[in-house]
Amino acid sequence: MPHPRFLSFSRNGRHGYGLAVEGGVVDLSARHGAAWPTLREVIQADRLVQFAEEAKSLKPDFTLDEIRFEIPIPTPEKLICVGVNFPDRNEEYKDGQAAPANPSLFIRFPRSFTGHGEPLIRPPESPQLDYEGEIVIVIGKGGRRIPEAGALDHIAALSLCNEGTIRDWVRHAKFNVTQGKNFDRTGSIGPWVIPFTDEAQIADIKLETRVNGEIRQSDRTSRMIFSFRRIINYISTFTTLVPGDVIVTGTPTGAGARFDPPIWLKPGDIVEVEADGIGTLRNTIADEI
Amino acid sequence: MPHPRFLSFSRNGRHGYGLAVEGGVVDLSARHGAAWPTLREVIQADRLVQFAEEAKSLKPDFTLDEIRFEIPIPTPEKLICVGVNFPDRNEEYKDGQAAPANPSLFIRFPRSFTGHGEPLIRPPESPQLDYEGEIVIVIGKGGRRIPEAGALDHIAALSLCNEGTIRDWVRHAKFNVTQGKNFDRTGSIGPWVIPFTDEAQIADIKLETRVNGEIRQSDRTSRMIFSFRRIINYISTFTTLVPGDVIVTGTPTGAGARFDPPIWLKPGDIVEVEADGIGTLRNTIADEI
Repeated sequence: MPHPRFLSFSRNGRHGYGLAVEGGVVDLSARHGAAWPTLREVIQADRLVQFAEEAKSLKPDFTLDEIRFEIPIPTPEKLICVGVNFPDRNEEYKDGQAAPANPSLFIRFPRSFTGHGEPLIRPPESPQLDYEGEIVIVIGKGGRRIPEAGALDHIAALSLCNEGTIRDWVRHAKFNVTQGKNFDRTGSIGPWVIPFTDEAQIADIKLETRVNGEIRQSDRTSRMIFSFRRIINYISTFTTLVPGDVIVTGTPTGAGARFDPPIWLKPGDIVEVEADGIGTLRNTIADEI
Repeated sequence: MPHPRFLSFSRNGRHGYGLAVEGGVVDLSARHGAAWPTLREVIQADRLVQFAEEAKSLKPDFTLDEIRFEIPIPTPEKLICVGVNFPDRNEEYKDGQAAPANPSLFIRFPRSFTGHGEPLIRPPESPQLDYEGEIVIVIGKGGRRIPEAGALDHIAALSLCNEGTIRDWVRHAKFNVTQGKNFDRTGSIGPWVIPFTDEAQIADIKLETRVNGEIRQSDRTSRMIFSFRRIINYISTFTTLVPGDVIVTGTPTGAGARFDPPIWLKPGDIVEVEADGIGTLRNTIADEI
């Protein structure tokens, strides 16, 4: 049986969340929005599975064509990204350094992302808009210094990210990638939030990124340098994780920057990030108006 | 006349905000909390000056001893820090690089800070807790690609930050300072939010950090590599600033890491960050329990 697919959306200017069913979307926010305004609160209340059960027997309130996708957790307390987390990514840096002992981390603001189906925005400051396909975990049960052994119990759900990057702005200053990772609406998250109930959903799945149908990135989660368990353990060493926190877990080799010459995204391109059982996140590219 | 001093506090488990007056605190949140839950919404509604005027004639609701200070903007949309922003700081890195062309930026989560008067927390993972005294600007009017000429019009208020850092975790991974800057409650912001109404409040003021009364950092804002105008202009190039956004603008030379051997903060120490007209932010140090 396919996994339940939750989504956040806007429709006629109203923000909501729901469950995708045959023929469209059951609007859960119309039923539960007063108690749980967004999927963050639904996850905090540990209601995903119950809501999925409840919505199964309901008719859709509208079709997918009638909504616009938004990022699944609109205002997480934290949105943390892992850098350099697939084997050949470290070699790509050609700096002679061994594989790192700890994950590189950076932070993105929610407004640096847009929803499934919306264009990624190429700003006038740079033509170097690049893709990075990644798997997203959403924290359900919070905690500090979470042991690796029990770490997966803290994941509520899965999603996908195109961790779109303005490549030359990543090295615009002496330290840190902040600015190249935080141009408004240069990345995307979605389309779905898939409840996480079984380690097999992430243990060894394929993660693939395509540009105009051509495979650019393809790898398996079993090859990640830092496992999902290790990422949760490490991040929670310094910060208390809370329900709804979003962790973007790293991209395989093959971003546009790694080609010679580099191949940047341009208006008209279609980028798809797909992972087994989690879905396909699709975006076009548009110049900022 | 002294500037009005706003603060955020907790008292008997309730969170609020108010204005410091002779003899204590006027509880503005008791009067306006329904419409404006935190100082972020007060700033968004551009009410600081009006509230200061209104509260002047009121008697304090309680003394400063009866409250605990909290960070002034409890949940900003963004909390952005500028690295390496005083002349001698760049030389401290001894990497032979010229002064950077653009500001280094990193992001902290609000939970990495605590309020004035609370202890900074030294975690069991490292003894390398270090101070960095900094001036904080709080955005009043949002915007994107804000020109330097008008940038100061976007500042609503000023505060102070001890941008406490776990030094060895800043370089724990291949890239980025995220983890060393985000241990829970290792830094502080406060005590006050001072409305910004005149460039003279920040143009050439002294910023000083003392540990147990000994001056460790002392410099003037006129010597900043990246001016307040430039910081606002640069950050707003990639992200849309919104009311209540907090920008921590960089620290002078003289952090504990720069001594030979380094001098880390330890339980019992008292750290004070002071700037002309903005106040004195004071914290003790405690081991995590």
